[in-house]
Amino acid sequence: MVRVDLNCDLGESFGNYTCGLDARIIPQISSANIACGFHASDPLVMAKTVAMAKEYGVAVGAHPGYPDLVGFGRRNLSVAPEELKAMVQYQIGALRAFCDAQGLVMQHVKPHGAMYNMAAKDRKLADAICRAIVEVDPKLILLGLSGSQLLEAAAEIGLPWASEVFADRAYEDDGTLTPRSLPGSVITDEEQAIARVLQMVREGTVTARSGKTIPICADSICLHGDGIKAVEFAARIRKELTSNGVEIVPLHALKNG
Amino acid sequence: MVRVDLNCDLGESFGNYTCGLDARIIPQISSANIACGFHASDPLVMAKTVAMAKEYGVAVGAHPGYPDLVGFGRRNLSVAPEELKAMVQYQIGALRAFCDAQGLVMQHVKPHGAMYNMAAKDRKLADAICRAIVEVDPKLILLGLSGSQLLEAAAEIGLPWASEVFADRAYEDDGTLTPRSLPGSVITDEEQAIARVLQMVREGTVTARSGKTIPICADSICLHGDGIKAVEFAARIRKELTSNGVEIVPLHALKNG
Amino acid sequence: MVRVDLNCDLGESFGNYTCGLDARIIPQISSANIACGFHASDPLVMAKTVAMAKEYGVAVGAHPGYPDLVGFGRRNLSVAPEELKAMVQYQIGALRAFCDAQGLVMQHVKPHGAMYNMAAKDRKLADAICRAIVEVDPKLILLGLSGSQLLEAAAEIGLPWASEVFADRAYEDDGTLTPRSLPGSVITDEEQAIARVLQMVREGTVTARSGKTIPICADSICLHGDGIKAVEFAARIRKELTSNGVEIVPLHALKNG
Amino acid sequence: MVRVDLNCDLGESFGNYTCGLDARIIPQISSANIACGFHASDPLVMAKTVAMAKEYGVAVGAHPGYPDLVGFGRRNLSVAPEELKAMVQYQIGALRAFCDAQGLVMQHVKPHGAMYNMAAKDRKLADAICRAIVEVDPKLILLGLSGSQLLEAAAEIGLPWASEVFADRAYEDDGTLTPRSLPGSVITDEEQAIARVLQMVREGTVTARSGKTIPICADSICLHGDGIKAVEFAARIRKELTSNGVEIVPLHALKNG
Repeated sequence: MVRVDLNCDLGESFGNYTCGLDARIIPQISSANIACGFHASDPLVMAKTVAMAKEYGVAVGAHPGYPDLVGFGRRNLSVAPEELKAMVQYQIGALRAFCDAQGLVMQHVKPHGAMYNMAAKDRKLADAICRAIVEVDPKLILLGLSGSQLLEAAAEIGLPWASEVFADRAYEDDGTLTPRSLPGSVITDEEQAIARVLQMVREGTVTARSGKTIPICADSICLHGDGIKAVEFAARIRKELTSNGVEIVPLHALKNG
Repeated sequence: MVRVDLNCDLGESFGNYTCGLDARIIPQISSANIACGFHASDPLVMAKTVAMAKEYGVAVGAHPGYPDLVGFGRRNLSVAPEELKAMVQYQIGALRAFCDAQGLVMQHVKPHGAMYNMAAKDRKLADAICRAIVEVDPKLILLGLSGSQLLEAAAEIGLPWASEVFADRAYEDDGTLTPRSLPGSVITDEEQAIARVLQMVREGTVTARSGKTIPICADSICLHGDGIKAVEFAARIRKELTSNGVEIVPLHALKNG
Repeated sequence: MVRVDLNCDLGESFGNYTCGLDARIIPQISSANIACGFHASDPLVMAKTVAMAKEYGVAVGAHPGYPDLVGFGRRNLSVAPEELKAMVQYQIGALRAFCDAQGLVMQHVKPHGAMYNMAAKDRKLADAICRAIVEVDPKLILLGLSGSQLLEAAAEIGLPWASEVFADRAYEDDGTLTPRSLPGSVITDEEQAIARVLQMVREGTVTARSGKTIPICADSICLHGDGIKAVEFAARIRKELTSNGVEIVPLHALKNG
Repeated sequence: MVRVDLNCDLGESFGNYTCGLDARIIPQISSANIACGFHASDPLVMAKTVAMAKEYGVAVGAHPGYPDLVGFGRRNLSVAPEELKAMVQYQIGALRAFCDAQGLVMQHVKPHGAMYNMAAKDRKLADAICRAIVEVDPKLILLGLSGSQLLEAAAEIGLPWASEVFADRAYEDDGTLTPRSLPGSVITDEEQAIARVLQMVREGTVTARSGKTIPICADSICLHGDGIKAVEFAARIRKELTSNGVEIVPLHALKNG
């Protein structure tokens, strides 16, 4: 049976600030990427988000980011690989304490924002992240952009990995995401997005911006919980997948399946 | 054989800022309390300090503090017990990731500064800290002020604990530290401090400010590494203890001994 | 003619986080207290909030708070008066740069949250805040709790001050706010709140929790912009005041009037 | 008479952390660049550093940096021009409050670290910084790298500017600094450094790495206060300059001179 994971960034609230419709999106997903206090979240939010994931049977992963709260971890920051490795280990450990306290096993790590994007292209950064993870716990699964340096680095070091795709983004012929600056980079038509997801998951291919059909590895689909429309779209994707015979499972079941 | 632990706060540097003579004090101690990024330290400093502790065979503990870098965690902050619990779990987890990455087992937790002082007197805060620790790992040892609410809270919850004493501080009849605002609160005479330490460790008593001899539990002596004089005094204490038949061991050996 | 100022805390968004219905509340008020980056806000939010105040002809004041973003400046923090003075000057200066850049004269300073509450009762803190302001610009108006140490400290030092009252809070016989822990501390009946505001502004009195009528100085009424109900209530207060012959003016017009 | 300014970064301590020999270097300089709390410093340090500058008759400038305390503002950060403008205005204002409080007129602004280096080459960032300054106070002098985009942007917008040179750095034929990655980028021979400074100040030229003599505008020489050797070298430069008939004056005297 065809299986796929649905992941979403959760736990991005901070102190007095609420962000994201966590309670609305969590029933739709199988894996939660929980922010770790560097680009978003705080200890209390992390504790509560882990509890919510436990309640819904959603697998938990760390979502480490750059130490840039005001920029939400979306601004490129020039960090040395050794610094990056340390900040990833720190954040994994911080979240894992809440998993341990609540009797959960942490499933995965997905870098956030600028860290995710920079490491997708820069092998030294990708290597630093993978070494960070494997040293702390070699059973953790790295969740990264399909076809990225992150996944190659994980494969080389023997770290379990999973490949993430986007329902609403266009792809180039080499499997990379079409830059947002180019026309057509974002798929706004919902039907088209659904059709693309089904193709990616069932066929293992996607139609690139050029019209060419290219292979793509869709272990997990990234959903968004930052607005009502996003949540409704997530629910729709889940429904279409299951009604088309695709089973929604967390990453660890996928890898063991 | 009489045994005692010697502990010191390490890893308090931050980014471009160096603080403490870590490399000088570490040969003298058996347990290191490593700052976790809230009141001092950063991920790279934590990684390096854990490595240094491993090299010297010194046991590692987390030294969580209030999120107050500019105040070095020394300013009282009104936190709810639930917030406190979460911030302690976060910091324990963060440091433990570096222990795991380097193959060390974290030994203990010692709250820092205002968190240490407030929890020594406020049972709700003490309970929150102890619950935080026991949920993450019930084998961790709480290191706290002799006779404090922290130790009582640990005992009640079944968390291993160790009692810390100070070579250079006066005590009141009830076993509490003489407030720094009172004359004679700090022992400045080195010979007297040494004699007091030997008495505390071997006799289990201390002469209070009133002149009365009171019982005290000296599992660990807090040393300082923030200046040449402090380091020299630490070396002297270590030498006097060992030449008087006291064995210096980390907390876990003490508890198992 | 009877005059009163309506003030509200604005500019509390931060980076990716939105907080408060600033665009909805600003037409109702005459003075805006703008957060300065310590407990809320960031440079870009401050620039935009000053621009919005300018557009609506609303007077601008600094709203300094404790350096506690995760606690939104609401947690008591033990700061030395000298530290407090420096952190207030820093924040006043930061906001004033945006006023200067946009051709506005900063009108006032209102401490936020725990700083406001602690300085209301602690004369040393109140003195530190007033000295901070008078040194930077002696024409700035201190906006503080009616009957508080803050206003007494301002009066003593010769700093212009204005007295703030709350529509939805009960008062004790000595003019202090009824603690939130006591029953009846918050006025939930809207009609009663309106009647109280009119009495405070026009009569200079308020009915204390005991039933006694006490004098109160109502230079400014604190409104809230953190929800639709709060905004609607603010609009209602404004309408009732104007229809009852009370003129809404910013603090500086009040003091000069 | 030939005149030159000697500038140094001061006020880089933070909370419990001391950094720089401020009291030792300040007698040697005429202009102080004071950190503003984003990459270093805190409100109390800023207040004390402004007081020290006043005591020694040294002119004060703001030294704004990226919001990156752990990286000391030395890591490149991708900021939008509008964000950069706001963060510069914020920091200028913050420091100026301390100048106002102590009766000093702020003289200049010198961007720090990665902000300085990025804006030296990126005209959009340079423009944002210059607009930030001119809007807050058009009499402020921008101090920037000789031949950089920062100075060109200032000249175009009509902002007073001053050109900074380095005693210990090699230059390329186009007047840019030799990258530190290249051999010979740092002048380690003290006699040679002194000779170069004298040539730059008196002749307005420097011998580039290629051996070619190129023009250079030496309004101010950047000195360092981060170690005994640096302070001694600064004293030597000052002595050599004055004994060779060069007058040491702050930037504003230079420009008016």
